[in-house]
Amino acid sequence: MGSYAFGFDFGTLSCRGIAIDLETGQVAATAEEKYAHGVINGKMYHADIPLQKDWNLQDPMDWLFCICQISKRMLKDGNIRPEEVKSIGTDFTSCTLLPVKKDGTPLCELAEFRDKPNAWPKLWKHHGAQKYAEEIEAYAKEHTTWLKDYFGGAVSSEWVFPKLLQVLRENPEIYDAADYFMEAVDYIVMALTGRVTRCSAALGVNCFWVKGQGYPDPEFLKAIDPGLTDVTETKLAGEILTVGDPAGHLTEDMAARMGLTTEAVVAAGHSDGAVAGCGAGVTESGSMILVMGTSTCHQMMYKDYHAFEGLCSIAADGMVPGLYGYESGQPATGDIFQWFADTGVPERYYREAEEKKQSILQYLGELAAKIEPGTTGLVALDWFNGNRSILSNYNLSGLIVGLTLDTRTEEIYRTLVEANIFGSKRILDNYEENGVPISYIYAVGGIARKSPWIMQMCADAFGKEVIVPLVDNVPAHGAAVCGAVALGKEGKGEGFATFKEATEVMIPKDRQVYRPDAEKTKAYAKVYEAYKKLYDMFGKDDSFMKNLRK
Amino acid sequence: MGSYAFGFDFGTLSCRGIAIDLETGQVAATAEEKYAHGVINGKMYHADIPLQKDWNLQDPMDWLFCICQISKRMLKDGNIRPEEVKSIGTDFTSCTLLPVKKDGTPLCELAEFRDKPNAWPKLWKHHGAQKYAEEIEAYAKEHTTWLKDYFGGAVSSEWVFPKLLQVLRENPEIYDAADYFMEAVDYIVMALTGRVTRCSAALGVNCFWVKGQGYPDPEFLKAIDPGLTDVTETKLAGEILTVGDPAGHLTEDMAARMGLTTEAVVAAGHSDGAVAGCGAGVTESGSMILVMGTSTCHQMMYKDYHAFEGLCSIAADGMVPGLYGYESGQPATGDIFQWFADTGVPERYYREAEEKKQSILQYLGELAAKIEPGTTGLVALDWFNGNRSILSNYNLSGLIVGLTLDTRTEEIYRTLVEANIFGSKRILDNYEENGVPISYIYAVGGIARKSPWIMQMCADAFGKEVIVPLVDNVPAHGAAVCGAVALGKEGKGEGFATFKEATEVMIPKDRQVYRPDAEKTKAYAKVYEAYKKLYDMFGKDDSFMKNLRK
Repeated sequence: MGSYAFGFDFGTLSCRGIAIDLETGQVAATAEEKYAHGVINGKMYHADIPLQKDWNLQDPMDWLFCICQISKRMLKDGNIRPEEVKSIGTDFTSCTLLPVKKDGTPLCELAEFRDKPNAWPKLWKHHGAQKYAEEIEAYAKEHTTWLKDYFGGAVSSEWVFPKLLQVLRENPEIYDAADYFMEAVDYIVMALTGRVTRCSAALGVNCFWVKGQGYPDPEFLKAIDPGLTDVTETKLAGEILTVGDPAGHLTEDMAARMGLTTEAVVAAGHSDGAVAGCGAGVTESGSMILVMGTSTCHQMMYKDYHAFEGLCSIAADGMVPGLYGYESGQPATGDIFQWFADTGVPERYYREAEEKKQSILQYLGELAAKIEPGTTGLVALDWFNGNRSILSNYNLSGLIVGLTLDTRTEEIYRTLVEANIFGSKRILDNYEENGVPISYIYAVGGIARKSPWIMQMCADAFGKEVIVPLVDNVPAHGAAVCGAVALGKEGKGEGFATFKEATEVMIPKDRQVYRPDAEKTKAYAKVYEAYKKLYDMFGKDDSFMKNLRK
Repeated sequence: MGSYAFGFDFGTLSCRGIAIDLETGQVAATAEEKYAHGVINGKMYHADIPLQKDWNLQDPMDWLFCICQISKRMLKDGNIRPEEVKSIGTDFTSCTLLPVKKDGTPLCELAEFRDKPNAWPKLWKHHGAQKYAEEIEAYAKEHTTWLKDYFGGAVSSEWVFPKLLQVLRENPEIYDAADYFMEAVDYIVMALTGRVTRCSAALGVNCFWVKGQGYPDPEFLKAIDPGLTDVTETKLAGEILTVGDPAGHLTEDMAARMGLTTEAVVAAGHSDGAVAGCGAGVTESGSMILVMGTSTCHQMMYKDYHAFEGLCSIAADGMVPGLYGYESGQPATGDIFQWFADTGVPERYYREAEEKKQSILQYLGELAAKIEPGTTGLVALDWFNGNRSILSNYNLSGLIVGLTLDTRTEEIYRTLVEANIFGSKRILDNYEENGVPISYIYAVGGIARKSPWIMQMCADAFGKEVIVPLVDNVPAHGAAVCGAVALGKEGKGEGFATFKEATEVMIPKDRQVYRPDAEKTKAYAKVYEAYKKLYDMFGKDDSFMKNLRK
C-alpha cells in the first residue's frame, strides 16, 4: 500500500491539485479545475444586482465543487486508492473573507442573504473597503505601535478588519447573523474538517495578530466601532494553529464527496503567497523568494525579528515554523507587460510573432533581450498599479522618460521590464540596508519559468545569483508539504517531522541558476541610479502624482 | 490683358507654385512638382559615397527643374500669356546653404567637386555642423552681446556660420573655390536674376546680421577661424534687400526656360516660415502665427524691439517690412503624432480606422477628442526632439507620467497632443510675461487645416481665440504677395505699395475662428500647472535627461 499527500492550491480563477508519493517524492497525479463563476464583479451572476467598481466576490460553492472534482480525478489518474491518501494540505488566496454560520454554511447560500453582496466572500482583490481601511489606519497610526512594528505602518483594504468593518457598517444584519468570519485559508479547512481553526501565518499578515501578543485589545476595537469590541472572541474565535499543524480530519460528508476516507489528516491552511517557500523547497533563514506573476510578491524567511520601514508585514512562523516571514510586494508585474501588449504594441509585431509561432510577449521579449543595458536612453517607474513596497502608496502611477522620435516599441517594453526589476532591487536593497541580509534569491511563478531573459536581467541588475527552482506548481507542492508535516505531527510514520525533511523528499532538486555578468551589472547600476532619482522625485513627495489621480 | 503674380514656395520635398490675378486676387492656377532627388541622406545618389548620420543635402538642379516645370504648367492651366506675368516671388526652406561660382554655378555641379558632399547644398535639417555650432556659440556667448540680444543666446547648427565653418574646416579647397555661399532663399533669386542679393529677413534670423549694425566684425570672425576673417565682404557679399524689394528681372535664359519674359520683376527671397504672415493675410503688429506641421514654428510680428530669454531670433523686417519678426519653435509636433501612430498604436485601431475609411491619426483624433480635459490623469512633456523654445536644449527628451493599467491608447495620444499645445502655451506665455503682448493668434499649416479638434484644444488650453485663415498653400500665397509688392516698388500700377494693400486683394478673407470654452479652459489650467512643474523639474536643470541621452 502506498502513501500519498494531496495538496490543493486555491488561486484566483481555479484550484490546482497535486498528489505526491510520500516515499519517493514523485508526483503521482495533478489536476486543475476552474471556478464556474470565477471572479464576480460588475454584477452578481445569479440576479441583476450591480456591483460597485472595486468589488470582487467569489462563490464558495465553486471552491468545494473544485476540490471534490480534483480529488476524484487524481485518485483515478494516479491509480490511488482512497485509504492511501494520508494527508491533505491547502493554500488559498489571502485575504479572502466570508461570513459563515456555526455549521459552516456561508451566509451567501442562505436565501435571505443571497441578494446581498456583503454576504458573499470578498476576494483578496476586492478593494471596496478602501475607506474603512483608511479609517482604521488613521486611528491605528495614532494609537498603536504594533501597526508599525508588524504591519508596515499601513492598513491594506485587502485585509480582514477593513472587510469586516464594511459588512458591519453597510449591512449590520449580515454582521449580526454571522457566527464567524473566516479567512478563506481557514474556511476551506473548516469545510473539510468541521473545525474552526485559524492559521497564524495568515493572521500575522492581515489580521493584526502578533505571536505572543494576540489580537488588538477590545479598547482599540471599540474605538474603531463598538460593534467590533468582542469580535476577536466571537466572530474571529477559533484555535490558532501554526502552518504544518494538523487541523483535524475529513468529515464523513467531505470524505465521501472527495472519494477519500475520514482518516486523512487535514493541515492548517496556508496563504498562496507565503506557501511558495516550502513549495520551492526553500526553508533556510536568509532566503528571499520572488513570486513573479501578474504581480510580484517578495517573501523572505529570516531567523530574527527586525522591523523597518517599507515592509508589508512580519509574521512569526509566516512561511515555515521557526522563522519570521517578511512580506513585501509590487502590485503589478505581468499585468504591466500585458497592458503594454494590449495598449502599445503595433500590428506588425503581432504579425511577426505569429510568423514565428510565438506569443506577442515572447516575441517582444526576444527583441528586447537583444538590447544592451543602458543603451535605450529610457527609464520608467513601474507604478502602474501604485507602489506597495516600499512606499505603500496607491496614488502613484507609471512614468516613462527619455522618449525620442527614434524610440522603438521593443525599447519601451524592455524599459518596463527593467523598471519592474529595479522596483524589486529597491525592495531587496531596503532589506539589506536595514540589517536583514539576503543570502539567497529565488524566483518562482509564471515569469520565472517562462522568461529566462527576464531572469537573466534580474541576476545582472541585482548583481547576484537568482535561483529558479524547476518545480511545476509551487503552491500546490507547498500545500502538500504542509499536509505531510501535519501527518508527521500526528505521529504517522509516512509524514515528516519538519518542513526541511518534507521538502528534501517531496520537492524536486532541479534548479536553473542565473549568474550575473559583471559588465552588465555595471551598466544597470547607472540606469538604476536614474531610476532611484525618479523614485525619490515622485515617491518621497507624492503630491505631483496624487494630483494627477484626482 | 491680365496681370498675374507668380509665387513659388520651395519646401523640403517639393516646390508649389501659385498664379494670382493681381486685379481680382483670384487664384488662376496652382501646380506642384517634387524634387527628383528629394532629401539626400544615407548616401549620395550619383555615386556610392556614404553620408554620415545627420547629413541632409539637396540637388540645386532639382529646384530649377521644378520652378521651370511649374511655371509652364501654370501658364497653360491658367490660360496665361507670358507677358501677363508681372512678378515672381519666392520663399525657400531656411537656412539651406550652398557654395556657388560667380556665374551662379553650384560647386556640386562641377566635376572636380561633385563627389565631395561638402560642395552640395546643406538642407536646413542638415545637423552635421553641430560641433561647429557649439564652437561658435561658446566663443560668441563670451565675447558678444548680439547673440543674446538678437539670436536667443544660442547658435543653431542649422544656421549659416556653422555650415560655412564645416566646409572651411573639412574641405578648405571647396571653401577657397567658392565665390559665394548663398542661402537658398537668395540662391534661387540669383538663379532667376543673375544678381547676388541677400534678404535681410533671413540674415537677421540665421546669419548674425543685425539691421543698423551689419555682420559680426572681422575680429570676431578671425577669432573663430582666420579663414573667415573677410567672409562677409567676399563670400557673403551682395546687396541686402528687405522683403518685398525688387531684386532684378528674369535673365533671358531663365525667362526662356520658364516660358516668361525678361520683364517680370523678381522679388527678394523670403524664408518659408516667416512668409506665413503675409501668406495668411496677417500684417498687424501683435499677431502671433503658429505654423503647425511636422514641427511648430511660432512667428510673431511686433512693432518694437524687445529682447528676452527663450527666443530664437528677433529680425527687423523679419516677416513684413516695418515690424520685427520674433521667432520661436517646437522641434516636433506632427512628427510626435506620427511616431506614436507607428510605435504605439495597436492593430485594432488600424482596423477600426480602415472600416471608417479614416487615416489612423484621424480615427485616433476622433476618439481622443471625446475625452474631457483633465480626466486622463496623464501629463507628458513634448520634448521628443528636444526643446527649441524656450529652453533651447536638445538633450531633453519626451516623458509621460500618470500611466495605469487602465490607461488607453487614445488617452496617451490625447496627452501627447495636449503636451504639444502646452509647449506652445508656454512659449506664448513667455512673450506676454516679457512685455510682448499677443493681440491675435493665428494658426496655419497642415494640422491647423486638417485637425479641427486640435485647434479647438488650442483655443481651450490657451483660453484665447485661435484664427485659422482658410488659405490653401499659405507660403506660396506669401511668395506671390512679395512679388506683387516688388512690382509696386518698381512703380508698376498692377503692383502694390505695401504688404497690407497686397494682402487685402490677394489673400482670401475666409477664416475659421476657434473660441475657448471657459469650463474647458479651467480644466486645462490645472493640467497645465502639472505640465509646468514637469517642465521645471526636467528643464531647468537638464542633468537628469542629459545623463539619459549619454
